Amino acid sequence: MSNSLEAIEVNKITLDGKLELECGQDIENIDLVYETYGTLNSDASNAILICHALSGNHHAAGTYQNEERPGWWDALIGPEKAINTNKFFVVCPNNIGGCHGSTGPSSINKQTGKSYGPDFPIITVADWVRCQSMLSDSLGIKVWHAVIGGSLGGMQALEWSCLFPKRIKKAGIIAAAPKLSAQNIAFNEVARQAIVNDPDFVSGRYLDVGKSPKQGLKLARMIGHITYLSEEAMRNKFGRELKEGKLKFGFDAEFEVESYLRYQGDVFSESFDANTYLLMTKILDYFDPADKFEGKLDKAFKEIEAQLLIVSFSTDWRFSPERSKEIVNALIKAKKDVSYMEIDSPHGHDSFLFADKEYVNGLSSFLEN
Amino acid sequence: MSNSLEAIEVNKITLDGKLELECGQDIENIDLVYETYGTLNSDASNAILICHALSGNHHAAGTYQNEERPGWWDALIGPEKAINTNKFFVVCPNNIGGCHGSTGPSSINKQTGKSYGPDFPIITVADWVRCQSMLSDSLGIKVWHAVIGGSLGGMQALEWSCLFPKRIKKAGIIAAAPKLSAQNIAFNEVARQAIVNDPDFVSGRYLDVGKSPKQGLKLARMIGHITYLSEEAMRNKFGRELKEGKLKFGFDAEFEVESYLRYQGDVFSESFDANTYLLMTKILDYFDPADKFEGKLDKAFKEIEAQLLIVSFSTDWRFSPERSKEIVNALIKAKKDVSYMEIDSPHGHDSFLFADKEYVNGLSSFLEN
Repeated sequence: MSNSLEAIEVNKITLDGKLELECGQDIENIDLVYETYGTLNSDASNAILICHALSGNHHAAGTYQNEERPGWWDALIGPEKAINTNKFFVVCPNNIGGCHGSTGPSSINKQTGKSYGPDFPIITVADWVRCQSMLSDSLGIKVWHAVIGGSLGGMQALEWSCLFPKRIKKAGIIAAAPKLSAQNIAFNEVARQAIVNDPDFVSGRYLDVGKSPKQGLKLARMIGHITYLSEEAMRNKFGRELKEGKLKFGFDAEFEVESYLRYQGDVFSESFDANTYLLMTKILDYFDPADKFEGKLDKAFKEIEAQLLIVSFSTDWRFSPERSKEIVNALIKAKKDVSYMEIDSPHGHDSFLFADKEYVNGLSSFLEN
Repeated sequence: MSNSLEAIEVNKITLDGKLELECGQDIENIDLVYETYGTLNSDASNAILICHALSGNHHAAGTYQNEERPGWWDALIGPEKAINTNKFFVVCPNNIGGCHGSTGPSSINKQTGKSYGPDFPIITVADWVRCQSMLSDSLGIKVWHAVIGGSLGGMQALEWSCLFPKRIKKAGIIAAAPKLSAQNIAFNEVARQAIVNDPDFVSGRYLDVGKSPKQGLKLARMIGHITYLSEEAMRNKFGRELKEGKLKFGFDAEFEVESYLRYQGDVFSESFDANTYLLMTKILDYFDPADKFEGKLDKAFKEIEAQLLIVSFSTDWRFSPERSKEIVNALIKAKKDVSYMEIDSPHGHDSFLFADKEYVNGLSSFLEN
């Protein structure tokens, strides 16, 4: 008995015009894949944009034909769920730079006939938001009822409210931060080093020679995974349980947590593109909307017109509640319409993916009232 | 103007007898290198054993001839320092399994004529303590005035008080934990995977072919380093400072924290043995004195006679104050003579290496009263 959407289809669009990137380059003929759930109303006033995080993609909810596991935010998107598809028309694109069908490092560069690989330009959150605004134009959505995302997705929702204040009524910024800490950057850097030091990385041109730096990607994912879970979640899930009940005095995976991380890393390394992973971590590192305003976040928020909901989770140590409060305090200082919820949840950073009751109720009333 | 000891010399001893290891193997003709500071008194009652941690060695204090940087715990060991070498005879060995002169994976196995490499047996903290007791016999030290260590070194001090209750008067257990958490094990596991997946690891036989898995070791060290520093220390030390003042939209090290970690990783990978690193992480994972007592730590502490000092540091998130309190509470339950200090220090797990005034005073009065 599932209340998930079924027979979801993937749409693909080639955007008109070119996107000028913050790095100084521009990019044309952008392909974007996206999914939609629910129905757009006649005045296009019920559209919600979902922004995905580091390893996410356009498949946010429901199942494809014959697919068992639904999209990554299915717990929150669907009929009568927090983001109610009986009321809202929900759009989720795969961002440029991604590896699930939108133009990215593994796409063919029409100028060379080969995949972009390491030549794909470095994107920023603002670039993504401008690209999403081009998609909005194509879809005939002048104003989003809401833009919502968790983690790196929340940073996009925040950037939307700054860059396009007239085009967004509500912004849901979940488990995010106004910029990465030195520790956040440090974890990203180790992940990047794991990838680029894999001999199969071939200076980023692995696709040209039929390879993939899977060991590096696996390590990067394992490191990331530790930061997504709370210490409490890990303790509850694995403790110090041994796979075979006793110590073996060897180097095979002995503790449950070891084999779990290895397995998760292996699965990820089979399905994700290494250059995209590098790019995503860099996009996170670069995000800092206050930077152009002498480090003053409230100044960066000056133009915001949207109503904002900031959500954090008690056991999130990647982007802790304190980081969300930095956003909240700057919004209050800038006299914006902001609400804040700190949800008591054991799942660490991953909490934003779970349908905790208080979180669901808070999000749905924010969207519907 | 230094108050460090000078012209320190390294001693080497080959232990009589064989050491029976917990894994079931035994090991003979063990070489141990060690240093001593201060003078042993006539009744050998002023000896303090220092136990080193994961990447430590026997060079705990002072400088060699023409050496600029003193040993790793020089801030605390020396004339009139916390561990006062004018009063105490201080001994610090490099543990077996190490890579600084004591018998370990990079030593020659006399049976094969080649380095042990991956055939070196898995050691435990209890094995180390038994090996250190053999050294005590050789040095004519029947009873240690104190056994002290930080992190993995603290675990050895704790194990000493359990295994040899008559041979130790005081135990200083600093920045330690009664066992690793799932998250601790997870970080160790990623470090191990980084090493064993380096093509230059050659199944652990890299020395036989003149190689070393330096990239893997570098990554392992970078991961470890993040867990040794507090988020606060990283923020104060690096913030989001850029090496060249502005974003370069590329993958070279841009933020100060990136180049710092890369540099630290490179230095470490030049001087440390990969098989030793693997072994040390495994020794940490296996440590769990309560395991033989149905998980009851107070039962594991039943035989303790030493006076104990437990020290933790406010910003240590590797082994947080809560983990030290688990030890304290079990000692109280077992009705042992325990004192506890939680030091307010910004340096994270590494705090145990710094001469914070309160910490120095607490440690010296524990040792001298």
